[in-house]
Amino acid sequence: MSRLAIKGATVVPMTGADAMIYGGEIGVEGNKIVFVGEAGTIPDNWGADEEIDARGMVAMPGFVNCHTHAAMTLLRSYADDLPLMEWLEQRIWPLEDRLTGEDVYWGTMLCILEMIKSGTTTFADMYFFMDEAARAVEKSGIRASLARGMIGVAPTAQLALEETERFIQKWNGSAGGRITTMVGPHAPYTCPPEYLKKVLALAEKFNVGIHIHLAETGAEVEDIRKQYGKTPIEYVNDLGVLDFPVLGAHCVHLTQNDIRILKEKKVGVAHNPESNMKLASGIAPVPQLLAEGVNVGLGTDGAASNNNLDMLEEMRSAALLHKVNTGDPTTIPSYRALEMATRNGGMVLGLADIGMIEPGYKADIILIDFTKPHLYPKHDIIAHTVYAAQSSDIDTVIIDGKIVMKNRKVITIDEQEVLANVQRCAGRLVGEK
Amino acid sequence: MSRLAIKGATVVPMTGADAMIYGGEIGVEGNKIVFVGEAGTIPDNWGADEEIDARGMVAMPGFVNCHTHAAMTLLRSYADDLPLMEWLEQRIWPLEDRLTGEDVYWGTMLCILEMIKSGTTTFADMYFFMDEAARAVEKSGIRASLARGMIGVAPTAQLALEETERFIQKWNGSAGGRITTMVGPHAPYTCPPEYLKKVLALAEKFNVGIHIHLAETGAEVEDIRKQYGKTPIEYVNDLGVLDFPVLGAHCVHLTQNDIRILKEKKVGVAHNPESNMKLASGIAPVPQLLAEGVNVGLGTDGAASNNNLDMLEEMRSAALLHKVNTGDPTTIPSYRALEMATRNGGMVLGLADIGMIEPGYKADIILIDFTKPHLYPKHDIIAHTVYAAQSSDIDTVIIDGKIVMKNRKVITIDEQEVLANVQRCAGRLVGEK
Repeated sequence: MSRLAIKGATVVPMTGADAMIYGGEIGVEGNKIVFVGEAGTIPDNWGADEEIDARGMVAMPGFVNCHTHAAMTLLRSYADDLPLMEWLEQRIWPLEDRLTGEDVYWGTMLCILEMIKSGTTTFADMYFFMDEAARAVEKSGIRASLARGMIGVAPTAQLALEETERFIQKWNGSAGGRITTMVGPHAPYTCPPEYLKKVLALAEKFNVGIHIHLAETGAEVEDIRKQYGKTPIEYVNDLGVLDFPVLGAHCVHLTQNDIRILKEKKVGVAHNPESNMKLASGIAPVPQLLAEGVNVGLGTDGAASNNNLDMLEEMRSAALLHKVNTGDPTTIPSYRALEMATRNGGMVLGLADIGMIEPGYKADIILIDFTKPHLYPKHDIIAHTVYAAQSSDIDTVIIDGKIVMKNRKVITIDEQEVLANVQRCAGRLVGEK
Repeated sequence: MSRLAIKGATVVPMTGADAMIYGGEIGVEGNKIVFVGEAGTIPDNWGADEEIDARGMVAMPGFVNCHTHAAMTLLRSYADDLPLMEWLEQRIWPLEDRLTGEDVYWGTMLCILEMIKSGTTTFADMYFFMDEAARAVEKSGIRASLARGMIGVAPTAQLALEETERFIQKWNGSAGGRITTMVGPHAPYTCPPEYLKKVLALAEKFNVGIHIHLAETGAEVEDIRKQYGKTPIEYVNDLGVLDFPVLGAHCVHLTQNDIRILKEKKVGVAHNPESNMKLASGIAPVPQLLAEGVNVGLGTDGAASNNNLDMLEEMRSAALLHKVNTGDPTTIPSYRALEMATRNGGMVLGLADIGMIEPGYKADIILIDFTKPHLYPKHDIIAHTVYAAQSSDIDTVIIDGKIVMKNRKVITIDEQEVLANVQRCAGRLVGEK
């Protein structure tokens, strides 16, 4: 197995708020971290195949984007600043109806390219034409948890179940384990009980988790209450959904009882502050969820409602939004925000061996160039990362032990090819001549 | 006078939401814009001394940062996530007491370096050792409105008045007009009526505007009410402060009557969403202010409470925060946010000839590299700028007709010299051996 040594970095292992190794080194064998420590930790005779001089850099676990719709990059800035239903019904859905597998491949590639360039090493995706999405993940070298979105009230309801089954059989555990899969029932308001039961049967059959939107908007809560006399969380819980490992996206509008259920059922929550802000969906009670011990990670949501895939920005927005919302500047301190973007995210996706720099963990490591003016002076590396760093400060990205970006050049993707194809696909979608 | 031509850019002149010139060109003579239009606008025989090939770039007015304390970059990430008074009294003020003129020079230089690299061409500063700040502005080529902060309840109250007088005499209109000055009474709660009257006498004597913090926190409003039986806005208005041109920073906690006063007195408001969020100060009623016709620009505040000087991020935060706060996703659409960061900002600083790309306006122009992955596909340039662009996309910055950054290299500042000195000064401040 190939051996990679990273030397001279300030290592932020995310094993504790005070854990920080100055002039540290990391040894990677195959796809795993085998050494982490101060200078001299890696034995002299270890024989690295490659060594990265990381002086001036900070090494930390790559970011985990817990919720996105990758190929929606094709719709970035196509429709903004509109009322939610007008945005969806008149702008987004008509275009999505015209998407082809090729569109999804290039849209997902653009998403992955942007994510790697901003330090994301793992993402959770829910969309369609998922074979194409998986091909993009396989080629690019990123890690992903993929789910075919399933809308029970759509004409494609049955097809989505069949595609999900085929998709899981084909891709779960593939790309050397980088690709895992979930079932992806869209949301309580689009999946009636009978449909959700079929979805659960699939999850049971293949022993996979469930990626679902939960309690995103006030309108959803009202609808489900009207239809079933309960909250969206109660609705899925009563159907047994939460007895599986669940990635619940958004969880904005929650009752005390909902929070109790999320905690008891160990639901992983994907908090998407920028999407929730931009669509005016509301503010999730994240400080309370964290205080109760619910595991909360961060996501960007799709690029049509963000409009970027920048996890540094998402951390910053989470930290700032909840401070002003609670009136308490000590809410979500910087280390907590970084935890949400790394360790917590891994757990939300059911991947227990990512999100820390520790022997035995997967080698998903980013190197941040801390020589930039906006990262001076050197008072606090964690606060700098969360409150001041930019995604363009990410210099090097290692995923599953392989260097996928070095000096900001992504090695696994032909950037110009992706951009040209994205522009072509997007042009066709919006009907350019 | 030297002539500069910019050709092949998509020009966003900020003269109206639909004004956009594809493949446009801009002619600059001396420090002024003389031509703007489609290809062929600049006469063939005009004879430019320099021509910039701006294909793939978007040209727009540089950003105006309406409120900062520049040298506080020295305290960036020194103290975060703390209760406001603990942060100020135990962390920030003790360090500020130890600042020297040299510290302020290098801290201001770092601030300017970061601002130029993120597309800011003009800023409003309130701090002390302002001769040093002005020297940094002069050398760096940026445009600034500078005010010596004055605290009426401090032992330095009288000194601040004298320094302000000397400072205005020495610097107002200097650096070829790039430097303008204001008087800077810190805030209603630090400036008693008798002191404010002396400040007004200076403003009148030198015919300059007033830069003041107003209604930043709930505690301030309560204090002023207790002391004077009125709101901070009413307090300064009753003293005649608002009869001068006023740059009011923050304006978070306002009554309907306050808003009426701000409108009637044509107060320019500097909205600092990220600082207000991070310090949990509150959310300014910006949509209502804009609807009432109050002029609102954007500011970052000092780097100790943000922790960067990134106006693209500030625009994005403003647009997102007010959407979720009002529950209306149409609030502060992207063009409005961009207007706040450019045209409105110029007016807040009393500089009527910046913030647009129009003949007769000052040549403060930025070129944004739109070939980055996160700016694909090309649906909407304004939405891309506000919701997706990063400050590292700023390629070229022209201020007062001079190129101060090209291909991301700042020409007027020795970056390494600044960083080394900043680290040295900050180390001494926090007592490193």
